[in-house]
Amino acid sequence: MGLFSKDIRSMDDLFVHTLRDVYYAENRIARALPEMMEKASNPQLKEAFKSHLGETQNHIARLEDVFRMHGVEAKGVDCPAIDGIIDETEDVAGEVDDKTVLDAALIASAQAVEHYEITRYGTLIAWAKQLGRADCASVLEKTLEEEKATDGKLTAMAERGVNDKAAAAR
Amino acid sequence: MGLFSKDIRSMDDLFVHTLRDVYYAENRIARALPEMMEKASNPQLKEAFKSHLGETQNHIARLEDVFRMHGVEAKGVDCPAIDGIIDETEDVAGEVDDKTVLDAALIASAQAVEHYEITRYGTLIAWAKQLGRADCASVLEKTLEEEKATDGKLTAMAERGVNDKAAAAR
Repeated sequence: MGLFSKDIRSMDDLFVHTLRDVYYAENRIARALPEMMEKASNPQLKEAFKSHLGETQNHIARLEDVFRMHGVEAKGVDCPAIDGIIDETEDVAGEVDDKTVLDAALIASAQAVEHYEITRYGTLIAWAKQLGRADCASVLEKTLEEEKATDGKLTAMAERGVNDKAAAAR
Repeated sequence: MGLFSKDIRSMDDLFVHTLRDVYYAENRIARALPEMMEKASNPQLKEAFKSHLGETQNHIARLEDVFRMHGVEAKGVDCPAIDGIIDETEDVAGEVDDKTVLDAALIASAQAVEHYEITRYGTLIAWAKQLGRADCASVLEKTLEEEKATDGKLTAMAERGVNDKAAAAR
């Protein structure tokens, strides 16, 4: 979408714009995850980032399916939100001087990423249904469920030991 | 926190850093809401933004309480995440050429803001408890409940007419 142009004239345009926003975001997340995997010390957390990278690649493929089903080109648009969330992840990680505290920070950062995806997929699903595209909504719902499950898994990991160890670093 | 310095050495440092991140975010949101209020056409949505501005001012005051309770200075740190989320809100709003579609876009943007706050307050509460600061956690929990309620109110508003009207703009 061009700067200062008013290219979004209908809800369908808004739906496609937001699909492209999330497509950019998922690709940005796929590029960020290997570094998060490398920074994590806790083996389960490393494993969780690795498995989420596989899921993210699936989410990208599902978005491509939705673009195809909806008859529009699969492409990204700039998404300052995910850029900001990931920049902040990298900034904070660079400031942490203890590996157990870093694990706690990485979980919090990953949950901020998940929540961004949860809100965007929730919106896309509501709009797809509104536009009579229950078929697109149902593909997007699979991804939303996986994002929520990842968020829950990260909370459990924080509560099951990561935060204890981080607090012991005082 | 200084660039390239490693100032976060303990979970307590990480907690204070994240408090300051959210403090910056709440202040940024308080500055953005009047413009969102002005852009909204639906009177209930305008009213929801207005009432959320009042809540946001309360959340800022509560964060100041938590800073005081924890014995640290109330100040913000840069938060590229909320900057990105709000920049995106403004970019998208600037591209929408129909006021009913703009209402739907504003709700989606506001929900992205809410989800950022929900994830950060969720993390802060877990860390406060871990650090033995149940008193701070309990203040932060009040805000978290309000953020979740606002998110639910926005979903209801989208489903109770805003999306219908936006879809009719096709």
